[in-house]
Amino acid sequence: MEKFKSENYDIYLGKLQFPQIENFLQKKVYQSSKKIIIVDENTKHFCLPKLLKNVKTLQAANIIEIKNGEKHKTIDDCKLVWEKLIELKTDRNSIVINLGGGMLTDIGGFVSSTFKRGIPFINIPTTLLAMVDASIGGKTGVNFGELKNQIGVFSKPMAVFIIPEFLKSLNKSQILSAYAEIIKHALIFDEKYWETIKNIEIHSTDYYLNLIIPSIKIKNEIVSIDPYEKNVRKKLNFGHTIGHAFETISHKKGKALLHGEAIAMGMICETFISHKIAGLSQSELKEIISHIIKYFKPYILQKQDFNTLIEIMSHDKKNSDKEINFTLLNSIGKAEINKTCKKDLIIEAFEFYSHLPFKN
Amino acid sequence: MEKFKSENYDIYLGKLQFPQIENFLQKKVYQSSKKIIIVDENTKHFCLPKLLKNVKTLQAANIIEIKNGEKHKTIDDCKLVWEKLIELKTDRNSIVINLGGGMLTDIGGFVSSTFKRGIPFINIPTTLLAMVDASIGGKTGVNFGELKNQIGVFSKPMAVFIIPEFLKSLNKSQILSAYAEIIKHALIFDEKYWETIKNIEIHSTDYYLNLIIPSIKIKNEIVSIDPYEKNVRKKLNFGHTIGHAFETISHKKGKALLHGEAIAMGMICETFISHKIAGLSQSELKEIISHIIKYFKPYILQKQDFNTLIEIMSHDKKNSDKEINFTLLNSIGKAEINKTCKKDLIIEAFEFYSHLPFKN
Repeated sequence: MEKFKSENYDIYLGKLQFPQIENFLQKKVYQSSKKIIIVDENTKHFCLPKLLKNVKTLQAANIIEIKNGEKHKTIDDCKLVWEKLIELKTDRNSIVINLGGGMLTDIGGFVSSTFKRGIPFINIPTTLLAMVDASIGGKTGVNFGELKNQIGVFSKPMAVFIIPEFLKSLNKSQILSAYAEIIKHALIFDEKYWETIKNIEIHSTDYYLNLIIPSIKIKNEIVSIDPYEKNVRKKLNFGHTIGHAFETISHKKGKALLHGEAIAMGMICETFISHKIAGLSQSELKEIISHIIKYFKPYILQKQDFNTLIEIMSHDKKNSDKEINFTLLNSIGKAEINKTCKKDLIIEAFEFYSHLPFKN
Repeated sequence: MEKFKSENYDIYLGKLQFPQIENFLQKKVYQSSKKIIIVDENTKHFCLPKLLKNVKTLQAANIIEIKNGEKHKTIDDCKLVWEKLIELKTDRNSIVINLGGGMLTDIGGFVSSTFKRGIPFINIPTTLLAMVDASIGGKTGVNFGELKNQIGVFSKPMAVFIIPEFLKSLNKSQILSAYAEIIKHALIFDEKYWETIKNIEIHSTDYYLNLIIPSIKIKNEIVSIDPYEKNVRKKLNFGHTIGHAFETISHKKGKALLHGEAIAMGMICETFISHKIAGLSQSELKEIISHIIKYFKPYILQKQDFNTLIEIMSHDKKNSDKEINFTLLNSIGKAEINKTCKKDLIIEAFEFYSHLPFKN
């Protein structure tokens, strides 16, 4: 079992975490707390029984179930959870356990952080993507209208538990979705890790040890230095300025991309822009793109989408009213924040994406 | 002009604050920011023109108007403001100016603190109650169902400006509403200040200098020591455990009490309980009650309300599921937190209240 400090909470990963959860909840401060587990339809079936079987303290917990899927990550869904918390007479001595993917830890974290001006919560991510990304770093929030994570707060969980048990039933698209963030962590922060990634087959059994743990450590290192995203944390936005816009437009069109698929597309476009204006070499461009398209499928973009995408980007939290903010790569392992570029170059990046020789 | 540090923002009070607002907004960090002023129907008419006339920087500001009154302090009202902020392309470099009473600074602070995970805001309270209470201390939030301030966050404004100009048009009930909090500040914290209060006519011109400023300083001193209400800040809850329940039931009955009126009632009941179980002497009980009933009107309580009131109290943020938490007085100027009492004693306090010889 490994445990390391995040800003001021602990992340538990490796082996043996079920007993760790038990120990954590038996700390004096939580011993007599009301425990509430938030689950969705999936985690209720596939993860909750394992958790209850292994963590005796939680067998008396109250369960709140929310609906699956990003489209249920809204303020109105929060209202349903707040109502249940009131019904259960949840108070500031209670503790919420978020058991689910990134959608669940986002909304569960937000609901907890705003209920009675904040009650404690812990995250037990059950998808690979949530393990390497959403559950760590204290970002919570919900979508608003068509805009992703528009309403939220920075709020830290009391602890995060990464349980390998939950990795056993992962399907290919879940693995891919996390893989985009894993690639990103290497590209922005660690050239050597990129070399490792290139040489590991993502469906191999080494995946957990060699890809997930280093990725969590990179994410945690960055957010611990800059929890409120004033500077270095912005590096994590690589691929996300354009990626979020792809994700939003795909929902509008009724053919939703997974977060990781959208981020992979965003990274392709932003790698292209990095080559054009941030010093990334031609050979690095080629190396990155060819690795990404080996794993990810193409998504058909139409010319009339281009302006819609740019309009969506101008509402991104990370952008100011007048300029679209990018994190770009100077080289593999080295990112530069607060870059802007002309609209024409963004369009050019869309064109570049549209003509790539995808394998899938 | 006086300016003093709160936890990590400044409170400006005394004379000359309009130029201070101008100076503040011309700081480099806000110079090119989009400015958004949130007003309600009242402050739009009575306060906004004065602000715009005196602070040139704000003449180009965007205005968002919300509806008056506590019943519009809901999540659905937040949604309307978030929508307008999006329309205006508000970003993290923008700054929100909350111009209004406590209801407005509560909802404006919450909306700002959760928009894109937090954009900066300042408070310009326009009622006496907001000046001495709501605008200071970083509590933001909205009501949920019948429960007051159930959803919210602790979030600090960048600055608070107390402008005497806005005190000119106060009516009697506004003065009284603030007066309850002023009395509370003395009772929980400062015996000498209580002596001052007893000897000042609340409609005199000395009111501002002798009552408001000391009161703001007490509130600020307490919240700076304990911003998240872990210990000493709970002293400020004196009168509020029962007072909030009175406020809630009065809204239900369609004959709403002002916050200050409800708190005055709450203080009477909790002073009675203090005498019964916290060491407050008979003569102090008499002294406090006779001062409060000199100014505040009686509110008719029916026997069937008593259990409803206790049920409401058990949902109060400050209470745990099993026990109702009080701050009680050991003596005038000295409060004790985390006291509990039997339900029968609370009922006895309601009876005591119902039989007082009110003057108004």
